[in-house]
Amino acid sequence: MTGKRILTGDTPTGKLHIGHYVGTLENRVKLQNDYETFVLSADLHALSTLADDPSKIRGHVYDVLLDNLAAGLEPQKVTFFVESLVPELYELSAFLSMYVSHNRALRNPTVKDEIKMKGLGDAFSLGFVNYPIYQAADILCVKANLVPVGVDQMAHLEQARELARDMNNISGKEIFPVPEALVGRVGKLVGTDGNPKMGKSLNNTIYLSEEDDSIEEKIMGMYTDPNRIHSTDPGTVEGNPLFIYLDTFGGELERSQIEEYKEKYREGRVGDVEVKKYLSEIIKDFIKPMRERRKVYENDQKELNRIIIEGSHKARKIVAETLDEVKDGLNFIK
Amino acid sequence: MTGKRILTGDTPTGKLHIGHYVGTLENRVKLQNDYETFVLSADLHALSTLADDPSKIRGHVYDVLLDNLAAGLEPQKVTFFVESLVPELYELSAFLSMYVSHNRALRNPTVKDEIKMKGLGDAFSLGFVNYPIYQAADILCVKANLVPVGVDQMAHLEQARELARDMNNISGKEIFPVPEALVGRVGKLVGTDGNPKMGKSLNNTIYLSEEDDSIEEKIMGMYTDPNRIHSTDPGTVEGNPLFIYLDTFGGELERSQIEEYKEKYREGRVGDVEVKKYLSEIIKDFIKPMRERRKVYENDQKELNRIIIEGSHKARKIVAETLDEVKDGLNFIK
Repeated sequence: MTGKRILTGDTPTGKLHIGHYVGTLENRVKLQNDYETFVLSADLHALSTLADDPSKIRGHVYDVLLDNLAAGLEPQKVTFFVESLVPELYELSAFLSMYVSHNRALRNPTVKDEIKMKGLGDAFSLGFVNYPIYQAADILCVKANLVPVGVDQMAHLEQARELARDMNNISGKEIFPVPEALVGRVGKLVGTDGNPKMGKSLNNTIYLSEEDDSIEEKIMGMYTDPNRIHSTDPGTVEGNPLFIYLDTFGGELERSQIEEYKEKYREGRVGDVEVKKYLSEIIKDFIKPMRERRKVYENDQKELNRIIIEGSHKARKIVAETLDEVKDGLNFIK
Repeated sequence: MTGKRILTGDTPTGKLHIGHYVGTLENRVKLQNDYETFVLSADLHALSTLADDPSKIRGHVYDVLLDNLAAGLEPQKVTFFVESLVPELYELSAFLSMYVSHNRALRNPTVKDEIKMKGLGDAFSLGFVNYPIYQAADILCVKANLVPVGVDQMAHLEQARELARDMNNISGKEIFPVPEALVGRVGKLVGTDGNPKMGKSLNNTIYLSEEDDSIEEKIMGMYTDPNRIHSTDPGTVEGNPLFIYLDTFGGELERSQIEEYKEKYREGRVGDVEVKKYLSEIIKDFIKPMRERRKVYENDQKELNRIIIEGSHKARKIVAETLDEVKDGLNFIK
């Protein structure tokens, strides 16, 4: 153990997919032995897309927890907590929001991107604009040192780093470590349709809970090189989702076979179908141990509840202490 | 008792003045016997003007509490609480902020006015934009039915009313009564300098804690009719701060004398000095009982603390229950 803390988490709007895995889950699993790890479910943030259908969020919280456990996070080591079960976190974010200019919040590039990507125009909530501050509170409330994030969350982390410095400065105390980002080895995994972003609403994902036949079907239908009509046409490997996936999910043992396929593909000596079948096996092997771990928990609602409730109680204690330090620093009444 | 609740409060940025009294305190005092009354100190909101000097806020909280007690609020009847001691209130506001569009928040006329009045330009915090939502949470968290407010807070109350309806609607339950405003008999008291707004930073106030000699000095220096040079010049009564104050603070017994002064003033038969001396006596008589009540508490820091801490504990319990109802309504994990 390093004596340091990790905070990471997910917005529970649906099941996690292989893009989440290489973006952040992989790092969570690796580092859980070296860091005191906190994994948060940002259920209140999920309202920014599910405001009209809030009752769906509860199910997503459990789905995402299951995905994390399936990915290999161990509940004996990791503290799972639910944002809405920690009121002190929102008070901390209220303090933080007094030290962020409205303009600075709107300049956040991830906020801008999301507005564009989701076609929100002017129709976004105040909570949506606040979110980077809630996320800063998520990170700072447990005094995280390291934050495994997807590349699209880097702007939020920068905001959290600024706020850590500002709050230390205004209170004259080193309350918060300035958190570091840890970007996954694949910052952003391309979708099965070639869209640079993988997302539930884009219907171009492979879920961590995907069944074998569904994995096969999705991979056989993948977007590859659109200019290649026949298997004898020379194909492009670079930027081709098929080979991006092979490079991402192939292990050491597959390396030479993958390089051979690349060569053949470039020369028009192998068909898409053969490479897709090969990738399909790799992804199925990748998902298999997750399916095994998932089985341990998926019908044990009581245990899932225990993990969430106990974790949230533990986190809440820590957050209440952090909030007290901020209040001391600002000379507020306690 | 009506079985109904009042929520009202102050942002602790300095001592309260006679404008606050006729705007809201007067109603608080009157209604404390008929309503379960909650008086909040929005200490975290005070950061929107004191972000660089947060340690001052604590003193202001006690000053404002003393002003409320001096005005005649009775701690056995009224629950005084401090916003920052109720974390659940901020979580409630996070829920609410998901149901307010960013545009709607910026359109709030009081927010616009404050930006203009304080010359903030683009330099205001995200917390400042959030404030109407925190204020809605202040009101809704105790399920207030009635809110005695200054006229400049009406826009915030409208936001709270909208949110009460929206949250009831989305949760399918009547969680929140739609709160009604009660505007004081003088919506906005003119400053001693004729400025339509009385404010500490404008140096045109008479504090509820003002000493007699200081009251006299301020009133003798008041702005009246700028076109009147000699006491024999006909003067204007309408819109003249001197007569506005007389109408506001004069009692039944003074009514005929005030009308006589108005007539004489119009006809150039009385000097400013004589009327100012008369007003000065009225204001001193108005402040006197407050000074007596203030004496009971002002050196009893222990009792002031007890009032705030016990009140905040009581409020927190109620707010936690309200938050639970919202979570039930949205099917969140509890």
